[in-house]
Amino acid sequence: MTTLLALHRRPDGGPEALKTFERAYADQHLPLIAQTPGLEGLRVERVTEALGGGTDLCLVATMDFADRAALDAGLASDAMRAAGRSLRQIAPGRATLLVLEDADDLLPEARR
Amino acid sequence: MTTLLALHRRPDGGPEALKTFERAYADQHLPLIAQTPGLEGLRVERVTEALGGGTDLCLVATMDFADRAALDAGLASDAMRAAGRSLRQIAPGRATLLVLEDADDLLPEARR
Repeated sequence: MTTLLALHRRPDGGPEALKTFERAYADQHLPLIAQTPGLEGLRVERVTEALGGGTDLCLVATMDFADRAALDAGLASDAMRAAGRSLRQIAPGRATLLVLEDADDLLPEARR
Repeated sequence: MTTLLALHRRPDGGPEALKTFERAYADQHLPLIAQTPGLEGLRVERVTEALGGGTDLCLVATMDFADRAALDAGLASDAMRAAGRSLRQIAPGRATLLVLEDADDLLPEARR
């Protein structure tokens, strides 16, 4: 499994700006993400707290693909390219996009 | 679903230091995490790339609980407290712990 993890930073402007971002994210960005070929799982979560410290993150999206080749094909698709453009409009410079690979070798055997 | 997301920053010292951290994480920290009461899912992934930028993150752990009450009970357990102590020893000051709540209301209806 290869995962694209999007970490979204909170917009300036308080709760009203956050609400506007969430609305655009739901109405414009996520429908495009959902059309990405090869996307096997999509999860979106709000950051409600940082334990033992603060955070500038407000939203996390987890996009699962079968493997790195499937992710690369997804990234090259029209849907994902349009999703990238929409994100740059609604949250310019406020996203970190990480590629993750399962590290099951680190898990206790019973959890693999 | 309530998720505890641990974002781990890379240790100084290059590949050798990263290997030492991963070994201690797998041998000392994760076996304690795995014993946490109420833990419904545990996923550990390596950060292999940051698209369009750099990152100081090396490892991401996703710990799923039924709800916030189950997470709080897990956090108060002996296993999780010992896991916290082990993490502060093997990676002092290098983890960000985020509490996430499903934001299914933002997803397109077909993906909810």
